[in-house]
Amino acid sequence: MATDQGTLAADLAKIVGAEHVLGPRARAYRADSTETMGLTGRPDAVALPGTAEEVAAVVGWCYERGVAIVPRGGGTGFSGGATPLEGGVVLSLERLGRVRAFDPLLWRMEVEAGVTTRTVQRLARENGLFFPVDPGAAESSLIGGNVATNAGGPHCFKYGVMRAWISGLEVVLAPGELARIGGATRKDVAGYDLVGLLTGSEGTLGVVTAVWLKLMPAPAVSLPVCAFLPDAQAGQEAVERVLGSGVVPAAIEYLDSATLSAAGSTFPGRAADREGFLVIAEADGSEAEAAELADALGPGALRPDARELWRWRESVSLAVTAQKGGKLSDDIGVPVDRLAEAVDGTIEIGARHGLEACSWGHAGDANLHSTFLLTPGDAGELRRAEAAAEELFDLAIELGGTISGEHGLGWLKRDRLHKQWSPAAVAAHRAIKDALDPKGLFNPGKKTP
Amino acid sequence: MATDQGTLAADLAKIVGAEHVLGPRARAYRADSTETMGLTGRPDAVALPGTAEEVAAVVGWCYERGVAIVPRGGGTGFSGGATPLEGGVVLSLERLGRVRAFDPLLWRMEVEAGVTTRTVQRLARENGLFFPVDPGAAESSLIGGNVATNAGGPHCFKYGVMRAWISGLEVVLAPGELARIGGATRKDVAGYDLVGLLTGSEGTLGVVTAVWLKLMPAPAVSLPVCAFLPDAQAGQEAVERVLGSGVVPAAIEYLDSATLSAAGSTFPGRAADREGFLVIAEADGSEAEAAELADALGPGALRPDARELWRWRESVSLAVTAQKGGKLSDDIGVPVDRLAEAVDGTIEIGARHGLEACSWGHAGDANLHSTFLLTPGDAGELRRAEAAAEELFDLAIELGGTISGEHGLGWLKRDRLHKQWSPAAVAAHRAIKDALDPKGLFNPGKKTP
Repeated sequence: MATDQGTLAADLAKIVGAEHVLGPRARAYRADSTETMGLTGRPDAVALPGTAEEVAAVVGWCYERGVAIVPRGGGTGFSGGATPLEGGVVLSLERLGRVRAFDPLLWRMEVEAGVTTRTVQRLARENGLFFPVDPGAAESSLIGGNVATNAGGPHCFKYGVMRAWISGLEVVLAPGELARIGGATRKDVAGYDLVGLLTGSEGTLGVVTAVWLKLMPAPAVSLPVCAFLPDAQAGQEAVERVLGSGVVPAAIEYLDSATLSAAGSTFPGRAADREGFLVIAEADGSEAEAAELADALGPGALRPDARELWRWRESVSLAVTAQKGGKLSDDIGVPVDRLAEAVDGTIEIGARHGLEACSWGHAGDANLHSTFLLTPGDAGELRRAEAAAEELFDLAIELGGTISGEHGLGWLKRDRLHKQWSPAAVAAHRAIKDALDPKGLFNPGKKTP
Repeated sequence: MATDQGTLAADLAKIVGAEHVLGPRARAYRADSTETMGLTGRPDAVALPGTAEEVAAVVGWCYERGVAIVPRGGGTGFSGGATPLEGGVVLSLERLGRVRAFDPLLWRMEVEAGVTTRTVQRLARENGLFFPVDPGAAESSLIGGNVATNAGGPHCFKYGVMRAWISGLEVVLAPGELARIGGATRKDVAGYDLVGLLTGSEGTLGVVTAVWLKLMPAPAVSLPVCAFLPDAQAGQEAVERVLGSGVVPAAIEYLDSATLSAAGSTFPGRAADREGFLVIAEADGSEAEAAELADALGPGALRPDARELWRWRESVSLAVTAQKGGKLSDDIGVPVDRLAEAVDGTIEIGARHGLEACSWGHAGDANLHSTFLLTPGDAGELRRAEAAAEELFDLAIELGGTISGEHGLGWLKRDRLHKQWSPAAVAAHRAIKDALDPKGLFNPGKKTP
């Protein structure tokens, strides 16, 4: 770094105030949710700007001096995207917490990047509306991070991922320019889709400071229907029957049998057995739709309470972690007719590496949380899991899929895009990075190395 | 051009076959739907490749020799995007007409760029599915063109524009590389959203050769509800009541009173008067939803037959043209609470320039087809209309909107993005063009000049 840490802190303090600059030891800013895998970094400084203009000034200061910028939302990411592994200034957006405008009758909200996902969901719900993006950790994940990762969740099956709910972005571009792209207008094809390009770019092309969100009226009902199938193949067939039913389910989820071993005991439905391969399909239009989903899932379909079911579903990840204390979890995606192969393949790859494995996730989008259980501190096991993860990526690509359906590449999967994309497509990707970040200072080492 | 026309035709013939190369006089390839405004070009040659590999070879040949490439779909665009105004090779995609795969039970289809929009709609419908993108001229518009413009239509209010229905693209990038980005997998955040970036890029970043489409089960019903309101302000208030009803309408359309004067006599509903400001809201879930929409529209709401109504709605554009024989029609978008100002502003701007004006379009997205009537061949009137259009763009931007909601900038609105975007955002746009098309040969002069 061209600037010593004393100068760095003093100059940042002039922009955001001394009380909003932290030093390299600020523990909370050294890692994200990948910390359990031993991934921690060391920032040169942490800046907590309070306005979009302050974000632009911090980026401008860094860009002029060649200092890396590591944007940070709620730190709930699963790929190390917010971890300052190569130093630089961690730019935390948590103080950009204003809801700038909310017009419930017009289905729209303008929020700063530091507003939590839960706040948006709650404000929507209190006004008869719905914000369908529902990643895990909604209490602490920030909207800016949801944009940076193009976040998903169960209900994105019917309603689309984060991009579908954005009509405009306020963003700081290199070399420190605050720009607005789009706004409250719902349709716009005047320029290239920079909103889409920035969404999911993981802080490598700029820093999002505010978002114009689209919302929709809350669905009439929430009627989940569940079935325990014998195995992944039978589960996939059930999913395909659901798709063929004529109903558009709000969500289609699954848990494989190994996941059920970890999380099944607290399943809220009355099932004689809680074994096998669980498929959940939710109707949100009418009771008639739920009945059609139950028909599609077959005899023995259960109808658990929606609130209890989704609360349980949110607990699955922690229940899996609790098995051995740690895990390496990936988020591959495949075409829906390859779901069973990906589920069974996860187990087989784990077995080849001497690892317990399981998967659960978004069956309708065939987006798996393929997971290898880890004992914290066991370096050999971690190495085997990393090797297993590479085989998992190869499997996803062999099945016509992706190495990341919703978490992004971050640090953990950096430099893997060439596995999935052709050289020409990877070259286009790199050309865009170079075009928008010519000094390579936005979240260096992440996504595109 | 560095290559003479004889060499050009001979070399292209080696790639696509002599019978698939046409000369500069090929009348059908000199203009698109903007021809009525006098916009025609002159290609150096027209190539009609039959495969994606041939497209790549033509692009490669052109890119090496510095010859411009003008991609062409069905030629139904309204902004001159397919018109070869500066010569070059018109690359028509009409022979790429294969449906490569169709899995109705998995809601997906892989089609080449030359398949018509109507074919996709029909195949979907025949299999109980729905492809919601419904631009005008669906009989002749091609899916590749729908991608290039990120096409919309009435039902995109509920279901989203073209981008929402694409899971992957096959595309030829500079300098002639065939690349595949995405595929049948529904969720993918591994790379930047190149699919989104190419969608709506109007052939200026590459040439789309095939598309992986998402589809959905056909909605249960199609129940349009209509009301004639006194004026645009009352119409906007009715639209806002519809938004506040709790129902998500499939479409919310409007026709202003001047448009009704042109098209109202064939309106299929039984209305005593066919005057004022018409609002159409369509329910596609249930009769109960339609009743709620009728309540929201107020007393006197009508319930016309859906097929008749939409057939009539498709005829509106031609009925307006028939008034004087020609028109200049733009497609501005504004926030929905500024709809009335944009509608009234269109009339006022026309009046200031001595032009009859009207507008109709997608009220829920506040995407107007703001139109000035023209007498064909009247050059003075055309000049006044062009001046009026500039004022219309200014109005849209003043209201927080866009100069193009669905047609794109093409040739007609090239070099207008700076009106709407800040210098930093425009610079990012230009940087992307330069990064992906370093020689500036993909549809030069269009969108970004």
